[in-house]
Amino acid sequence: MGGSRFARGLRAAAPEAHLSIVVNTGDDVTLHGLRISPDVDTVLYALSGLVDEARGWGPRGDTFRTMDALDRVGGETWFRLGDLDLATHIRRTELLAAGWTPSQVTRELAARLGSQGADILPMTDAAVETWVELRDEKRWVHFQEYFVHQRTDAAISGVEVRGVNTAEAAPGVLESIETADAIFLCPSNPFVSIGPILQVSRVRETIEAAKRRGVCVAGVSPLIGGATIKGPAARMLSEFGYQPSAAGVLEVYDGLVDVYLIDPRDRDLVPDVERLGARPVVVDALMRGRRGEARLARALMRAL
Amino acid sequence: MGGSRFARGLRAAAPEAHLSIVVNTGDDVTLHGLRISPDVDTVLYALSGLVDEARGWGPRGDTFRTMDALDRVGGETWFRLGDLDLATHIRRTELLAAGWTPSQVTRELAARLGSQGADILPMTDAAVETWVELRDEKRWVHFQEYFVHQRTDAAISGVEVRGVNTAEAAPGVLESIETADAIFLCPSNPFVSIGPILQVSRVRETIEAAKRRGVCVAGVSPLIGGATIKGPAARMLSEFGYQPSAAGVLEVYDGLVDVYLIDPRDRDLVPDVERLGARPVVVDALMRGRRGEARLARALMRAL
Repeated sequence: MGGSRFARGLRAAAPEAHLSIVVNTGDDVTLHGLRISPDVDTVLYALSGLVDEARGWGPRGDTFRTMDALDRVGGETWFRLGDLDLATHIRRTELLAAGWTPSQVTRELAARLGSQGADILPMTDAAVETWVELRDEKRWVHFQEYFVHQRTDAAISGVEVRGVNTAEAAPGVLESIETADAIFLCPSNPFVSIGPILQVSRVRETIEAAKRRGVCVAGVSPLIGGATIKGPAARMLSEFGYQPSAAGVLEVYDGLVDVYLIDPRDRDLVPDVERLGARPVVVDALMRGRRGEARLARALMRAL
Repeated sequence: MGGSRFARGLRAAAPEAHLSIVVNTGDDVTLHGLRISPDVDTVLYALSGLVDEARGWGPRGDTFRTMDALDRVGGETWFRLGDLDLATHIRRTELLAAGWTPSQVTRELAARLGSQGADILPMTDAAVETWVELRDEKRWVHFQEYFVHQRTDAAISGVEVRGVNTAEAAPGVLESIETADAIFLCPSNPFVSIGPILQVSRVRETIEAAKRRGVCVAGVSPLIGGATIKGPAARMLSEFGYQPSAAGVLEVYDGLVDVYLIDPRDRDLVPDVERLGARPVVVDALMRGRRGEARLARALMRAL
């Protein structure tokens, strides 16, 4: 969600630039026979202007009539799919069944809904799935089981992106990195949102090669004052032995980030950021409305 | 639709009787990856009281938000699936994918939605599909393509229920005929609604065996004054060389019906009905509201 908003901010800040948005597919899930790609859809809805701005995901004005009826006929409804949202999943599922790749489906959906000229690229067309280990139950579950069904209300002791090591990057992903003038790591969860992308075969190496050519990798902290606006990133940092802070996130990226945007509330982390090899940019990191997204993106671009 | 209404009338007319409703599945279709069983659902919605009484099919108060959104993302929407209706298809599809049979799915849905104690039995658990030949185009299409997509707005020159000859009756179907005190052929299309049921392996033979034991087979004409309330039965009768009338329908059943209910407007067909081997019962055959359904069922039961 922070990722899709920052991507939209980049689009607004540099409307003439070619923008490729590489999106995590590790939390894709099949429910009720429908293939659901939550992060791709959040980016699609954000770029197309359909997103529910208050929630940050799903189409605006969505209703849940099918889910309520599904509950009556005994279906599982912990993953609440809105009526408008369902159309996206139905269309994706039928195109995949007809032999389309996830990239092709995403391009088609983006063309239909509008993406402000940005390329939205799933990180891979291979099936990968993020699973997490529930610490107390010593049990691995699909990320969505933890994230939606359990509402992240359980400590986790492991994250595994199954299939990612053999997954090839989707068409356009490596090319977009190779031709980029700048690479941004959006303010998202470093373990389950950005992490899976970096684990896709050759993605991290291609970014490192770009760095050696002088391309700057810029990151935005998803944590402000040690907390996330939404989501379990802070908690997961602690559980995996990192400092639950902007600096902790940077440490996870392990030398990949050149320029790192943190909030003034985290000014005392500047020495940590420098120690971790990045140049800190201290700017109000809270994205208030669409103007806030663009302001943040502009601030980071100016610093490059 | 006439069939589901008459079945509901039977339920109201004989609330203590054991009622088994054997339903055509020849017009089942898979759309958007969802398995849709229109006739079973119409009976389910009618018996559960959920049906839209004005339309005669689909849940009351349904909306089409998902379909409208699907249209926006380029999906085919000629088969308009309502938001409430979708839940039934989603649940059916996931239960079938989990290995349930169509009969088991139907029993589960009936238990969830309520069926007034009636057993709703798909005619077979095998996959059968009714196809029709478009006369002018000399092309075979799935029944739904003709019925919904083309709105029956084309002459047809053939009907084929594919797979029906090797299809075994679903559990309970033959047993319900063997133990019945009376058997009713509902006022439905003789070619594409009742016909497929009679073609399922051993169904017609089992009815004929019941007749030899003295069980009465009662029919209700779906045509009044040479026209149907809804649907292409009259037109199909002409196209297949039958008289487009109550008598034409009876002729299609070829000696199966013992007692046949026709409307006073068709009184002049009494000699034809008798010639075709059935005892005519002349009663107002138009089902006005739920009271009309029960009245019609009672009239026919009294005549047995």
